[in-house]
Amino acid sequence: MTADILIRNARPMGGEPVDLVIRDGHFSTAGDPPAQEIDASGHIALPGLVEAHTHLDKTLIGTDWFENRIGPTRNERILADRKAKRELAIDARRQSARQILQTLQHGVLHIRSHVDVDTEIGIANIEGVLETREALRDLVDVQVVAFPQSGMLPRAGTLELMDAAMRAGADIIGGIDPATIERDPVRHLDAIFALADRYTKPVDIHLHELGELGAFCLELIIERTRALALQGRVMVSHAYCLGMLEPTRQRALIEALAAERIAVMTVGSPAAPALPLRLMRQSGLIVASGSDGIQGTWEPWGNGDMLERAKYLAQRNGMTNDADLAETARICTFGGAESIGLAGYGFADGDFGDLVLVPARTLAEAVALTPQKRTVIRRGRIVVRDGVPAASLSAAE
Amino acid sequence: MTADILIRNARPMGGEPVDLVIRDGHFSTAGDPPAQEIDASGHIALPGLVEAHTHLDKTLIGTDWFENRIGPTRNERILADRKAKRELAIDARRQSARQILQTLQHGVLHIRSHVDVDTEIGIANIEGVLETREALRDLVDVQVVAFPQSGMLPRAGTLELMDAAMRAGADIIGGIDPATIERDPVRHLDAIFALADRYTKPVDIHLHELGELGAFCLELIIERTRALALQGRVMVSHAYCLGMLEPTRQRALIEALAAERIAVMTVGSPAAPALPLRLMRQSGLIVASGSDGIQGTWEPWGNGDMLERAKYLAQRNGMTNDADLAETARICTFGGAESIGLAGYGFADGDFGDLVLVPARTLAEAVALTPQKRTVIRRGRIVVRDGVPAASLSAAE
Repeated sequence: MTADILIRNARPMGGEPVDLVIRDGHFSTAGDPPAQEIDASGHIALPGLVEAHTHLDKTLIGTDWFENRIGPTRNERILADRKAKRELAIDARRQSARQILQTLQHGVLHIRSHVDVDTEIGIANIEGVLETREALRDLVDVQVVAFPQSGMLPRAGTLELMDAAMRAGADIIGGIDPATIERDPVRHLDAIFALADRYTKPVDIHLHELGELGAFCLELIIERTRALALQGRVMVSHAYCLGMLEPTRQRALIEALAAERIAVMTVGSPAAPALPLRLMRQSGLIVASGSDGIQGTWEPWGNGDMLERAKYLAQRNGMTNDADLAETARICTFGGAESIGLAGYGFADGDFGDLVLVPARTLAEAVALTPQKRTVIRRGRIVVRDGVPAASLSAAE
Repeated sequence: MTADILIRNARPMGGEPVDLVIRDGHFSTAGDPPAQEIDASGHIALPGLVEAHTHLDKTLIGTDWFENRIGPTRNERILADRKAKRELAIDARRQSARQILQTLQHGVLHIRSHVDVDTEIGIANIEGVLETREALRDLVDVQVVAFPQSGMLPRAGTLELMDAAMRAGADIIGGIDPATIERDPVRHLDAIFALADRYTKPVDIHLHELGELGAFCLELIIERTRALALQGRVMVSHAYCLGMLEPTRQRALIEALAAERIAVMTVGSPAAPALPLRLMRQSGLIVASGSDGIQGTWEPWGNGDMLERAKYLAQRNGMTNDADLAETARICTFGGAESIGLAGYGFADGDFGDLVLVPARTLAEAVALTPQKRTVIRRGRIVVRDGVPAASLSAAE
């Protein structure tokens, strides 16, 4: 479903005002302007916010309040998460739709979601999120990562389920802490990369390993990316270790990641090590960001607004000036798009006709104040107008 | 200006639902209920959010976008701040009113504001904020700290201006980094505490000094608080050093601060050392929080919502469970009230009839999701209803 539309007086990425035309779902400068038009009033235009890391199957949006009594370690949280999945009977299809429709109102048009695969739920969550993806495909692009949240090597049968998830339609092979959870970094990464090779699919690895342990795992990932020629198709999520190394080691690893075009996703968590964003971008590393879990058993907060996420990135890095804030906005748009391999993202002729209008004077203001009365256009169709979802959306869940 | 009102079905601090009566500006259980009533629909009732640390004279709310090109050091920022005051001709009276009216919509009913005193502007900002305080006294309580932002000892004439600020009506003596800015910790603190002694006023010291230097300054502050019997009348703002010491030293200092009833204010900044909130509260230390500057030359963001601030505190401390989130809500209400010496704060008979109704199921949800359609009652008068300010407010600026 597409529509033809002329958008007057929009400022792409905060630049000079232009008129934009979307025709047959793509930006186009040729031919007469369409009859339908909208006045963007000089608002900033973004080609869709990119959510490069979330967990659509885990959100509790719209359910009873979950009283979190969980201890602080990652293992306690994994156990509690599995228990909650069992006891709360979270429906991955319904919950993923709720999150997608909520974040659409902020202008999130592209989502990469990790989706749990484990020996209790099997691939039911994968199937649920894939159903939602199909139902909402006119509104949002969704990439599904088969994610062994509870561990893969230590839980017999999980690797086979990962395989089943890929056959069921998952897009990306997910990995998880190769040392602290998997207990065998080489064997875990070999298994993950073997799947990627077999299915010709990208890889996305949750890497919370700290300091030199994390750095070693990064080296293993770099080696395998090079060996299998998977440049541009590997993402490392979190990579806290990059914020914990001495400067020479840090710089060398960042350059090695950049050389293999391995993307790094950081949420800018206030309680985790801060990644050196400026250095990463200056080194040509592909940097993306994401909300991680939204309103789930892991963390109670989150709204999925990727402009607010840009603010978190800036705040965690102590950035306050306009140039730095604009850079975090680019991470949550073009950086995300490049990291997850989106084609046709941007404002050039032939790019997909997606647009988010943000009422702000500069990109820095958009990040600092995250104004909410946005207009969201998807393939030429106005799906949110000044913060109000189109009537057709309310029936979508 | 007060009004009598019955508030049905409100849940103080997220507890059991009760009916509350405000009469002649105070909570009251005696007599017949007033004719005017409001249904709180089971929403959580807070006795007003407390903003314990902001800079009302520095906000740029409502002005042209300020393009921040400022370097990252504190000194660069102080210089840029002074330049901006000069070039932007920021009107402290008008700007303080704008911030107060904005944060009132979140339910902020008590504010302690640091206000610049320096040899360029003299005490003009103090006078401006005092004017606003008088104009808006029916809506919000404001405490004014005479704050030597640009340094006191290094700038001849500033101490005399501090004195003039106190005579003009400032409530609190402000201090600033006794070592790194003032270059003479003993002489700075002696001067500050001498003013406090002369005017019988409290003290509030910006302390960014790091590690052992900060710890040493805290010791000097503790010694002077004890010597002048200023227990319960001294606040240290930021106190990053408390998050940088080895555990024994950290605990000893926290206990010494608690023993002298010296409050500590932290904004939970994602880029500054995290203060050990749990240990501080468990040690009986009075802990408050604040927004610091809102939308100014120092930092471009900030909305002054003290429930969002509670979320920042939790996030910076890696807290995700309900009990911890409720604790951060208490810091931004009762903690703040105790730290700035508010009398009559609470729900007991005779306490001031102030109330903020937050549409949330638990305190944790109020912190995690910071719902905005709040109702704000000041001395029995409804000033904001479901997020919409009363008509009388729009004329107040």
